[in-house]
Amino acid sequence: MPEYSLAQVAQHNTTASCWVVIRNKVYDVTDFLFDHPGGAQVILRYAGNDATEAYVPIHPSDALDKNISLEKHLGSLDSASIAELRQEKKNQPKTRDEERIEAALKVKPPLRRMISVRDIEETAKQILPYKAFAYYESAADDEVSNIENARAFSRFFFLPRVMRAVSNCDTTSTILGYKTTIPVYISGSALARLGHPLGEVNLTRGAYKTGILQMVSTNASLSYGQIAAARGPDQTIFFQLYKHRRDDTAEKRIREVEELGYKAIFLTVDALIASNRERDTRAPFFIEDYENQGLSVKSESEADEGEVDILGTAGGLIRNNDMDMTWEKTIPWIRSITKLPIVVKGVQSVADAVLAVEAGCDGIVLSNHGGRQLEYSLPPMEILYKIRQQRPDIFDKTEVYIDGGIRRGTDVVKALCLGAKAVGLGRAFLYAQSAYGEAGVVHLARILQREIRFCMESLGARSVKELVPDLVERVDWQPLGAKL
Amino acid sequence: MPEYSLAQVAQHNTTASCWVVIRNKVYDVTDFLFDHPGGAQVILRYAGNDATEAYVPIHPSDALDKNISLEKHLGSLDSASIAELRQEKKNQPKTRDEERIEAALKVKPPLRRMISVRDIEETAKQILPYKAFAYYESAADDEVSNIENARAFSRFFFLPRVMRAVSNCDTTSTILGYKTTIPVYISGSALARLGHPLGEVNLTRGAYKTGILQMVSTNASLSYGQIAAARGPDQTIFFQLYKHRRDDTAEKRIREVEELGYKAIFLTVDALIASNRERDTRAPFFIEDYENQGLSVKSESEADEGEVDILGTAGGLIRNNDMDMTWEKTIPWIRSITKLPIVVKGVQSVADAVLAVEAGCDGIVLSNHGGRQLEYSLPPMEILYKIRQQRPDIFDKTEVYIDGGIRRGTDVVKALCLGAKAVGLGRAFLYAQSAYGEAGVVHLARILQREIRFCMESLGARSVKELVPDLVERVDWQPLGAKL
Amino acid sequence: MPEYSLAQVAQHNTTASCWVVIRNKVYDVTDFLFDHPGGAQVILRYAGNDATEAYVPIHPSDALDKNISLEKHLGSLDSASIAELRQEKKNQPKTRDEERIEAALKVKPPLRRMISVRDIEETAKQILPYKAFAYYESAADDEVSNIENARAFSRFFFLPRVMRAVSNCDTTSTILGYKTTIPVYISGSALARLGHPLGEVNLTRGAYKTGILQMVSTNASLSYGQIAAARGPDQTIFFQLYKHRRDDTAEKRIREVEELGYKAIFLTVDALIASNRERDTRAPFFIEDYENQGLSVKSESEADEGEVDILGTAGGLIRNNDMDMTWEKTIPWIRSITKLPIVVKGVQSVADAVLAVEAGCDGIVLSNHGGRQLEYSLPPMEILYKIRQQRPDIFDKTEVYIDGGIRRGTDVVKALCLGAKAVGLGRAFLYAQSAYGEAGVVHLARILQREIRFCMESLGARSVKELVPDLVERVDWQPLGAKL
Amino acid sequence: MPEYSLAQVAQHNTTASCWVVIRNKVYDVTDFLFDHPGGAQVILRYAGNDATEAYVPIHPSDALDKNISLEKHLGSLDSASIAELRQEKKNQPKTRDEERIEAALKVKPPLRRMISVRDIEETAKQILPYKAFAYYESAADDEVSNIENARAFSRFFFLPRVMRAVSNCDTTSTILGYKTTIPVYISGSALARLGHPLGEVNLTRGAYKTGILQMVSTNASLSYGQIAAARGPDQTIFFQLYKHRRDDTAEKRIREVEELGYKAIFLTVDALIASNRERDTRAPFFIEDYENQGLSVKSESEADEGEVDILGTAGGLIRNNDMDMTWEKTIPWIRSITKLPIVVKGVQSVADAVLAVEAGCDGIVLSNHGGRQLEYSLPPMEILYKIRQQRPDIFDKTEVYIDGGIRRGTDVVKALCLGAKAVGLGRAFLYAQSAYGEAGVVHLARILQREIRFCMESLGARSVKELVPDLVERVDWQPLGAKL
Repeated sequence: MPEYSLAQVAQHNTTASCWVVIRNKVYDVTDFLFDHPGGAQVILRYAGNDATEAYVPIHPSDALDKNISLEKHLGSLDSASIAELRQEKKNQPKTRDEERIEAALKVKPPLRRMISVRDIEETAKQILPYKAFAYYESAADDEVSNIENARAFSRFFFLPRVMRAVSNCDTTSTILGYKTTIPVYISGSALARLGHPLGEVNLTRGAYKTGILQMVSTNASLSYGQIAAARGPDQTIFFQLYKHRRDDTAEKRIREVEELGYKAIFLTVDALIASNRERDTRAPFFIEDYENQGLSVKSESEADEGEVDILGTAGGLIRNNDMDMTWEKTIPWIRSITKLPIVVKGVQSVADAVLAVEAGCDGIVLSNHGGRQLEYSLPPMEILYKIRQQRPDIFDKTEVYIDGGIRRGTDVVKALCLGAKAVGLGRAFLYAQSAYGEAGVVHLARILQREIRFCMESLGARSVKELVPDLVERVDWQPLGAKL
Repeated sequence: MPEYSLAQVAQHNTTASCWVVIRNKVYDVTDFLFDHPGGAQVILRYAGNDATEAYVPIHPSDALDKNISLEKHLGSLDSASIAELRQEKKNQPKTRDEERIEAALKVKPPLRRMISVRDIEETAKQILPYKAFAYYESAADDEVSNIENARAFSRFFFLPRVMRAVSNCDTTSTILGYKTTIPVYISGSALARLGHPLGEVNLTRGAYKTGILQMVSTNASLSYGQIAAARGPDQTIFFQLYKHRRDDTAEKRIREVEELGYKAIFLTVDALIASNRERDTRAPFFIEDYENQGLSVKSESEADEGEVDILGTAGGLIRNNDMDMTWEKTIPWIRSITKLPIVVKGVQSVADAVLAVEAGCDGIVLSNHGGRQLEYSLPPMEILYKIRQQRPDIFDKTEVYIDGGIRRGTDVVKALCLGAKAVGLGRAFLYAQSAYGEAGVVHLARILQREIRFCMESLGARSVKELVPDLVERVDWQPLGAKL
Repeated sequence: MPEYSLAQVAQHNTTASCWVVIRNKVYDVTDFLFDHPGGAQVILRYAGNDATEAYVPIHPSDALDKNISLEKHLGSLDSASIAELRQEKKNQPKTRDEERIEAALKVKPPLRRMISVRDIEETAKQILPYKAFAYYESAADDEVSNIENARAFSRFFFLPRVMRAVSNCDTTSTILGYKTTIPVYISGSALARLGHPLGEVNLTRGAYKTGILQMVSTNASLSYGQIAAARGPDQTIFFQLYKHRRDDTAEKRIREVEELGYKAIFLTVDALIASNRERDTRAPFFIEDYENQGLSVKSESEADEGEVDILGTAGGLIRNNDMDMTWEKTIPWIRSITKLPIVVKGVQSVADAVLAVEAGCDGIVLSNHGGRQLEYSLPPMEILYKIRQQRPDIFDKTEVYIDGGIRRGTDVVKALCLGAKAVGLGRAFLYAQSAYGEAGVVHLARILQREIRFCMESLGARSVKELVPDLVERVDWQPLGAKL
Repeated sequence: MPEYSLAQVAQHNTTASCWVVIRNKVYDVTDFLFDHPGGAQVILRYAGNDATEAYVPIHPSDALDKNISLEKHLGSLDSASIAELRQEKKNQPKTRDEERIEAALKVKPPLRRMISVRDIEETAKQILPYKAFAYYESAADDEVSNIENARAFSRFFFLPRVMRAVSNCDTTSTILGYKTTIPVYISGSALARLGHPLGEVNLTRGAYKTGILQMVSTNASLSYGQIAAARGPDQTIFFQLYKHRRDDTAEKRIREVEELGYKAIFLTVDALIASNRERDTRAPFFIEDYENQGLSVKSESEADEGEVDILGTAGGLIRNNDMDMTWEKTIPWIRSITKLPIVVKGVQSVADAVLAVEAGCDGIVLSNHGGRQLEYSLPPMEILYKIRQQRPDIFDKTEVYIDGGIRRGTDVVKALCLGAKAVGLGRAFLYAQSAYGEAGVVHLARILQREIRFCMESLGARSVKELVPDLVERVDWQPLGAKL
């Protein structure tokens, strides 16, 4: 394998010839520049230079092999250059953000002090790099839908039944026929390695230990194989598909995960376009100001009229999505490729729930993508309630899941009372693995298990089948103390 | 009686042989360890050691006799050891919490400055040990139901009638046929001695002086006999029963209180399982940080995955409750043991109110246990309103009481207008006796008497019978200044 | 006239013989002690001493003549004692409250800066003695009804009509046939001299200058004659009657004001009993702490159980009210004494509005006494709306006025659109005369005139007759920026 | 042309003879004093003096020619006087407000950091002179309607449809047949030069570059001709008419703009009278206090009773408006003068929408003048919703536009779903040109273009025609995070 010096690499720093170094290997990415889902601009920032630090946490290990043809894997850095890079990194002073994190880690509370899901989230927010936090936490526009997702649950109260024998309460359930200890799954979410070096593997292992199910995102930061390999014996995992605009690429992806043993396809339909996640978009400005200790930015000329670049960390992930899927075309096409059950993730209206049933979907996820896509999309809990009011037959015809804003056992049980088969949590598990790795995932699942059991017992319900609509009521006021 | 040295006791500090010292007496609690309602762990913390300080305020005086067979009452400490303990206690530096309380006591306002129920509560919160405060104040999860209990009253407004002769307004009423000066009773609540050394006796004496009725909890911190002995001539008290999972133990308890002269059984049905009272669970962490003046806790290894222990002070009290009571079985069984009237405490739905009537109960308490058990259980005031709307016949068939969130005479009168026979206050009286002992209880009752009379006069009502539904109206907005 | 020394007076300092000095005159008030509306306790505080400072601002000039028989007007202080008192007063150091007011007066904004009613109120609050402020501002319990009175208006929005000729918009109207420049009157309120030495006369003169009507309270701090004497030519004033429990006393009062030329009796029916105005009750504690610069109060013994004394400044005013008035008895009785029109002030339900019409009242005031009496009495604006919905015929049968929470021309116009004939403001005018005397009253009325005219023009209404229900709509949300 | 010295001018400083200097020219404005829309008082402040600084930013360049007859254009200042003025201005120390702005300009963020409409507004508020800010931002009374205008949008949520082919989403539309890239126009607003020296021309040029339409106000700070001259080829602009009370003046204005090529008349009907904009009225007090660093104002005598002058910057603009327009008279009269389409701006009820259709208007703007006129006028979005519910036929009979509170693409799309043809933004564009000139206008339009496109794609809508009522739903709660 040929060797290159940093000086040689540095000469290829344009769109005409663009080389980058990743983990001391040299790649010619010129041809790939405009296929990059995150855009050429992001790569060009590192043209002729080492890109390792930016690249690693957000790309699975097989990304280079999949995307850069082998003849463009040019070779290695020479050992002097490697030493030079290492020295450079050593000499780099700590950023203020790194210093802040170091201080936060010193006072990170022990896991036993984490009593609630929100405890874990709060801890994670303290110790995450700002950029990762901004990506995980951000939602559309003013984050109204994100807040309302959670707040919707607070408008549903219980009418508990007393004097029922509940000492043998059973919290288990199934999703697509696969058993789970509680009606909760880990929802697909991108880039777990932004928060913890082991990334998605923490989720897989934690799910195994607590007997719950995991959905893996197309945009996982580990390869689908690495995640599959982390499974315990007979552990079930699902795949969240972002369908590529090119059918052949999409097909290859589906076949790959089916072969790896993933047990269902959750087709994402609510996040096909880069949305306006301001917290994420502003992160670079925030960091710039923070590192400069609030020193004034230099105001630019008024002539600068360039289009707003809203592509934060999030943007790059969905540039290649298929914006032209339809019920008539896309569901049959997937059926033609795979035997796996198909769940449509991102249904936001009763009308589309009906269409999904008519299209023969095995399940639907009521979701507005955690409030991260269209601001003012109705909270999934309100859509669930609408289906219960207008089309309760849907619950008999397909499995209905729901995600967005769930933080408590009571949230889970409310959704089940109205007809949901299970609920998903995304951000919460991301935060748990960020703060405490696999142990955090296990701990979070156990909090939910305890809360769900207590809630069921207190309602007089001995099994999830006994969670019926009569146990909940939508109220016409907004509770005051509800946390969001 | 044999004597032991502290050194001898110290050798019995394991589950194999566990001795503890309480009030200078030595007990072998090895056999009892796993029957302890609060769990073995709590006792083992004091194994081979003096447990007096932790034990005394939360156990009635007959607890050792009832639970530890006499041959395990081993004997006394020897006088040298007694002196040693006394010296040790003397040498113990004051905790920061103790110093805070001392300072607070110096500025405790005189009783005459207490104008409202909330004044008294606020004063008590200043002078209580944090642990006691956390136990008294805590409620389920995010304390939403606790807040909403109070807030529900604020959605009911009066339509007062004018030009009625009210100079002879009569506020008296009856509960189960027993007379009370106002339609208010002291609701059963555990562990009054956490707040004041005389504990429940303050409540009994204050109730007597002001002519109101008291319900005594199974989990009182004084023995049922001590409380009964504190009664004035012909004073009526009721018993709040937590039914033990073993029928024989429950039967013994019922027979005991009937013999002691308690006049009714209030069967608790809404608090059979340890709930998630975060304020209570977090108290030890809070105190630890407070005493260390906010010094950082040492973060533990991520491997620590142990289940969350949500058993704060509250947890230990309900481990032996019967989780399998039913309308069909339990009410007839109690009827077979006692002639006392039976009231079911903790009804949270119209449906169960109907079943209680069908089971022949003499009364029901609409209650969600002060918001301390299932979060998002509907506020009792809303349930009362539902009964008024849907099944007003229930008010003719049984006596309906209500507790949770009541702090004002107007709250009491609103509940009576909708059909309640009387209302209970728990926390408020606990706080009153904590801050001012018996005088506080008397003062609080008198505030309520004054407020109830004024409210009735202002409504044009000359007696509780004239408190009718037409005088109140549920509004569709939430008042802004309502205190919670 | 005999003369006495302070030493002689000082010997009469018990209930057996109680003398006080007022404006250098000596009175024997022993026989009057227990007839004093404010209670004996208040007088005894000054027994054997000079009471001038406390007495003057809250009693009309004829109070001593009316209440103390002439032979008990013992004589004058001797000149040495008068000098001594003067010296004593001179030597008295300023209180902190007086110093605060002095500083506030130095920065009191000029009247031209007062743009809105609330501006004037805010200014007055800065320069009033705390005790006067507490009495003016206080309302029942937690002041919920007081706040909601104002907030109720914020739930009514306009549907303005455009393209109407409004250049000659006429804001005049009548009350009981008497002309007013705008449909607004000064509502009766007690103790104007607490805020300004000229007291109620400021209101009378300001009303004259701006062509609006004034209602004078039974509890005015000037005599009814002094106020009547302040009228301009043909100026109309009304009398707000608190009926004395003794009919003969009440009759005397009615005949007196009729002779003085008052043109109507506004019979107060919503404030017969001393209410729980905590801000007023707490004022002495507040002042005590304030003067001691927050030094700790000395905690009293727990044995102190005495009943709460809720009689702040307000309490003394209504001890002699008739608590047994009825529609059947009282209205005919007043009719038998006077030819003046009778208006019932304090109607709080549709049912009583109907009864008032049936009793032949000439008008009713929808009022909950500014939220100062029964907490959670529905806001008058909501009652007005109910009458409009349920019994619109009432508006044809009697004049309906409304007070409570009105601060803007839009508030006034909303009430008129729903059917009110006029609206009253009490506190606002008290504050205006406190801060700026007569000029403040004039200024406030002019602000309202400007706002009412603008509102009518903007609605397309050319006269108050064109203010119809279709122009307003009750909305189902609560505006955010509304000031309260 | 004759020359005058400052001394000569100074002698004409009364209503009898009033001269002013503007841009070194001398004018005799004696005859014009009482025709001045802003009142004589404002001019007299500069009588016998230089008025340039106050005059220039709020008057179009042709104002003097139009209003002051040529013989009163007396001549020029002599060169010594000109030099003297220049020196005077040089010697004037900077005000604190000028210093504040200088500092703010140094940290003004570059345009690329402006992600949202509110970002731009916030930046502008930092760098505007306080007086300009107060005029732009102020609204009626407590600004409730202004806040509620925006808040109304937050009660409308989306029911997005998934699985629709949206890759070719088309955001274009038309207004009165004229094409626009998005269904958004720049609403007429006065005095753009208060914020930026180029004023309205920034708006015209920005509209051209982004393909949107502009409505020019009667009260623009540039002449109608100057604005028309700034157009790009074939660029369409509309005229917002404040009809003068004298028909001949109004006619002249209409004919002038028609000749200049304006393409429609937007007749303002909701702002005929000076309203109570407190922020604007208070601005001089605010500035006075600010410049004096909060030094206490000298309190004036209580005798000062003069009427409140609510005429801030806003007041002067509308003194000559026709307050007697009617549907019957005014619309036909305009039709008789011009062929241009007529749109009525300021409809605030369904009833008037119907009348406008009957009067044959080509369009209506649902508007309450940005909450700047009648407080508690219902938000336009609520009126739009009412029309949709009660009279959906209106949308077929005329074009319906809406303005007030729009800040997001989602706001725009919600209005279109309910039936609006386009929406207007006023303040936002004023702020954009104030902060960044023409580039700010372009940037703001592009933000809206991006947000509208994303919203349409996310709803599954391929064109504005597919924005239908089923996609939005009015909810019965108020979202928490919505920005106002």
